[in-house]
Amino acid sequence: MSLLLLQNWDISSKVSCPRRRAPTCIAFVSEKTTSHRNYLMQQQISVITLGIADLSRSRRFYVEGFGWSPVFENDEIIFYQMNGLMLGTWLGRALEADMQRTGLARPGAFALAHNVASREEVQAVLDRLSRFGGRILRAGDAPPHGGFRGYVADPDDHAWEIAWNPAWPISPEGFVTFRA
Amino acid sequence: MSLLLLQNWDISSKVSCPRRRAPTCIAFVSEKTTSHRNYLMQQQISVITLGIADLSRSRRFYVEGFGWSPVFENDEIIFYQMNGLMLGTWLGRALEADMQRTGLARPGAFALAHNVASREEVQAVLDRLSRFGGRILRAGDAPPHGGFRGYVADPDDHAWEIAWNPAWPISPEGFVTFRA
Repeated sequence: MSLLLLQNWDISSKVSCPRRRAPTCIAFVSEKTTSHRNYLMQQQISVITLGIADLSRSRRFYVEGFGWSPVFENDEIIFYQMNGLMLGTWLGRALEADMQRTGLARPGAFALAHNVASREEVQAVLDRLSRFGGRILRAGDAPPHGGFRGYVADPDDHAWEIAWNPAWPISPEGFVTFRA
Repeated sequence: MSLLLLQNWDISSKVSCPRRRAPTCIAFVSEKTTSHRNYLMQQQISVITLGIADLSRSRRFYVEGFGWSPVFENDEIIFYQMNGLMLGTWLGRALEADMQRTGLARPGAFALAHNVASREEVQAVLDRLSRFGGRILRAGDAPPHGGFRGYVADPDDHAWEIAWNPAWPISPEGFVTFRA
């Protein structure tokens, strides 16, 4: 467990971080007030929010294509409970307003990956998604680092890699673990 | 458990999907060969890959700012083991080559969120990240839907929401669950 330091704050010897599983503990101690707070910085992503143009068009790709079930939906956002985090598909103008930033571009410089359990599933899932509003960017083939993968863009041009990576185990709950 | 159908494939009554926790089961049965395959479509994201311009600049934000530990790094990519999925930061030109697509734009139409355990942590984490190459997009304040949040862009202009959402529990392992 590592202790990190904020500028203008100091670490007090009185501060001890609670023991939990593998977080980084940041001890904030005000130089002025000598009050202190412990924050546990978890290595954790809570939500991925994709800016979209049309809820029903996006919904078709995720619900009918991937076969996923929304856990919440209203007239501007749909949430899906994923493997220890949430996926949100939100109207782009609402995301821009929340972020206080305009001009969000598509396609953005990122990719999401959905790993599957076998090599043969890669192209089958790509083909399936292409029938529900997706567009194949790269048909399934073998990358230099091993395994098998292809890419499909969702209806809002967000890229999904569909990959078989035999080195990285996927638990029955969908939790993915790195192995070298 | 729902059974979904691929075009040009049919569902056989002989096909039964294994029982696991909450996946959608897709039974693929070839009309021509009568061979069949069962695929379990997990509601799962395996990897988030961010296209970046400079590895060491990005590393500073994630390793020194967030305090996260890489699980793998070479001269073009760094992987972080997150809560049941991987975060990858990969040189943008390599991501474009892998995706067979050029012109990936920043800022893209998406946001990642890192939820914290208390309201007061939101601004503290935003301030901390801004000292390690981040740029505040929105200072912490209360959104209409409750809680508290702000936004910070990483050194490659990818948006992170830092949020306190008391409705969504976070387990000690960092797994986030939706609650209405």
